[in-house]
Amino acid sequence: MDTRLEVVYRLEVPSEEQGTFARALLLEQTVETPEEVALRVPVVRERLMGEIVELEPLEAGGARLVLQLPVETAGVDPAQFVNVLFGNASLHEQVILEDFELPPALFDRFPGPRFGIEGVRALLGVHDRPLTASALKPVGLSVDELAVLCRSLAEGGIDVIKDDHYWADHPFAPFEERVRRCQEVVQEVSARTGRRVVYAPSLSGTPSQVLRQAEIAQQCGVGAVLLAPMLLGLPFFYELVTRHLEVPVLAHPSFAGAQRILPETLLGKLFRLYGADMIIFPSFGGRFSYSRATCRALAERARQPWGPYRPALPVPAGGMQVERARELVEFFGRDVMLLIGGSLLRAHPGPELTARARALVESVAEAAAALSDPDLA
Amino acid sequence: MDTRLEVVYRLEVPSEEQGTFARALLLEQTVETPEEVALRVPVVRERLMGEIVELEPLEAGGARLVLQLPVETAGVDPAQFVNVLFGNASLHEQVILEDFELPPALFDRFPGPRFGIEGVRALLGVHDRPLTASALKPVGLSVDELAVLCRSLAEGGIDVIKDDHYWADHPFAPFEERVRRCQEVVQEVSARTGRRVVYAPSLSGTPSQVLRQAEIAQQCGVGAVLLAPMLLGLPFFYELVTRHLEVPVLAHPSFAGAQRILPETLLGKLFRLYGADMIIFPSFGGRFSYSRATCRALAERARQPWGPYRPALPVPAGGMQVERARELVEFFGRDVMLLIGGSLLRAHPGPELTARARALVESVAEAAAALSDPDLA
Repeated sequence: MDTRLEVVYRLEVPSEEQGTFARALLLEQTVETPEEVALRVPVVRERLMGEIVELEPLEAGGARLVLQLPVETAGVDPAQFVNVLFGNASLHEQVILEDFELPPALFDRFPGPRFGIEGVRALLGVHDRPLTASALKPVGLSVDELAVLCRSLAEGGIDVIKDDHYWADHPFAPFEERVRRCQEVVQEVSARTGRRVVYAPSLSGTPSQVLRQAEIAQQCGVGAVLLAPMLLGLPFFYELVTRHLEVPVLAHPSFAGAQRILPETLLGKLFRLYGADMIIFPSFGGRFSYSRATCRALAERARQPWGPYRPALPVPAGGMQVERARELVEFFGRDVMLLIGGSLLRAHPGPELTARARALVESVAEAAAALSDPDLA
Repeated sequence: MDTRLEVVYRLEVPSEEQGTFARALLLEQTVETPEEVALRVPVVRERLMGEIVELEPLEAGGARLVLQLPVETAGVDPAQFVNVLFGNASLHEQVILEDFELPPALFDRFPGPRFGIEGVRALLGVHDRPLTASALKPVGLSVDELAVLCRSLAEGGIDVIKDDHYWADHPFAPFEERVRRCQEVVQEVSARTGRRVVYAPSLSGTPSQVLRQAEIAQQCGVGAVLLAPMLLGLPFFYELVTRHLEVPVLAHPSFAGAQRILPETLLGKLFRLYGADMIIFPSFGGRFSYSRATCRALAERARQPWGPYRPALPVPAGGMQVERARELVEFFGRDVMLLIGGSLLRAHPGPELTARARALVESVAEAAAALSDPDLA
């Protein structure tokens, strides 16, 4: 068990075909050759063939398949890991990646969150309540307009102010100027109020563009960055986290929903494994259709004890309303960051927005204080 | 039209909700804020809101939605393009990305294939018949065993011999040694027979690992490389093609099937746009379930005239049988590369495999000579 990666798939295949399909999938995800060819090679036969651990027909139809796959191939590099997990398997419309169990032998290959929940809390100096976040948008605002927006939210008491994920190096708000100005605003408000506000710019582009942006952003002193792991590619995300970033990472789910992978596994587990400190996901009751069960499972996977990895902070988003803060805190508990964009931004920048942000922050604090479940509070 | 990106989605939404859903999706893919907030900003209102061009209920249920999206945001960088095409939209289970039309204003942002069909043919010196390819596998073979396999296939007349996509920098067959030896084999066979054989190693890992592998492989003189764009991330793929590779790219579909994007659009069009010269896909009649219609559409999109972009070579694969060569050539026509791995590799390395490879090459040539349809031949 210590040296085998366990992967759980759901097969949407009629019961009479499940055995054959499972065997074929095992070959697909390991040697990708006819069995007779693979068996000819001793090292392959003995160490690289993997194994069917469980094939359990489900009442609802289909089956749950658990494969043990050899770490010799999965652990070689961060691209190869995804390849072994769901490379060619992804091409089968009948296959869903449900979960995976990492063997301790692979723990040191992945960073997990470098800050995690406690690290992010320490950075913000907030230990006793859920956190809040908002977004700078829409794309199209000038740097001056962004600075006003940023100031309104910072003065309202929002903890983390992130770029909209559509921000890139647009000519009407060039990356460096935008980041410098917004960072100046949060620094000024932090210094004046004694309450740390973090600004997280969005890094986007090819690896060389993103590396340059990361350098500029960190030189400006930003407290975190926003990255979309599926858009940039998980291997590049891994390299950014392990080699280039000194600040926490807020992971954005853009381009991630289309994967036929359970969201709690992709966002809650794989993103955490690859180093996300805070994980944005579309919460129930918003613009997207993730269920309460999915959201609960995702938050659990982000936070639960797991080998050497720090817990990551779940960040429900996607059309959350200011008025729902209490419900969200009751659902997700204390270790959560509520990301509320549009619902805040309906207020005009300036005193009106600041007041609305402040109302949000206060209702979050009240909801947290009222948490009766000791596991949550 | 010249400055608008057109994107076609299929909405799996009941007819009474289609109007509202389409409007929400337009906002999602552009400003991601409530409409009233976006409309406050003149530049957003005038240039960045996009437009619903068509919303057509379908007989089978659902609707076809065509959005025009502003290139100001889509064209900023290769990550942003995907973001605008299918970033948050991918999180909606009711949305499928069907197609997109690139405005001429964006043509110079994307490389398309640098070699294309004619470039690959020129490299191989083969202009009058379909091409053949095979794979070095299973992972677990030693470098010596790989060299024997490679020689058998090269002597049998296979045009392109690629690494299995599971090859990475494995300790039992380290990248540099493996690539050097296989390249020596194809060079020796090419020199002796006067027929160019191309070896395409698989590059895998984080950007820095892949860049090092690309350098080694090109120093060894390889004729092409194998890359999995969805595994590495499309922006990194773009950067590799535009800045680091001097040889044609064979694109592998690993991790690409899970996307809720029509395969003909993702593999046939987006991979081509980002620079793939040869595009591997799971053909009908193999281990995967792509239909004939999907395969035909994919091959068409890879090869059809499209702005300034060279045609890319379709490479049907995924359990193709040597015995089906004729059928595949008749289906796909002359400009195709048949990738046949396991079915060839059932023969033992050495004279048996060489003979089987030769039989494949001959049946492909015969099938091509017999092509009656002048459009195909």
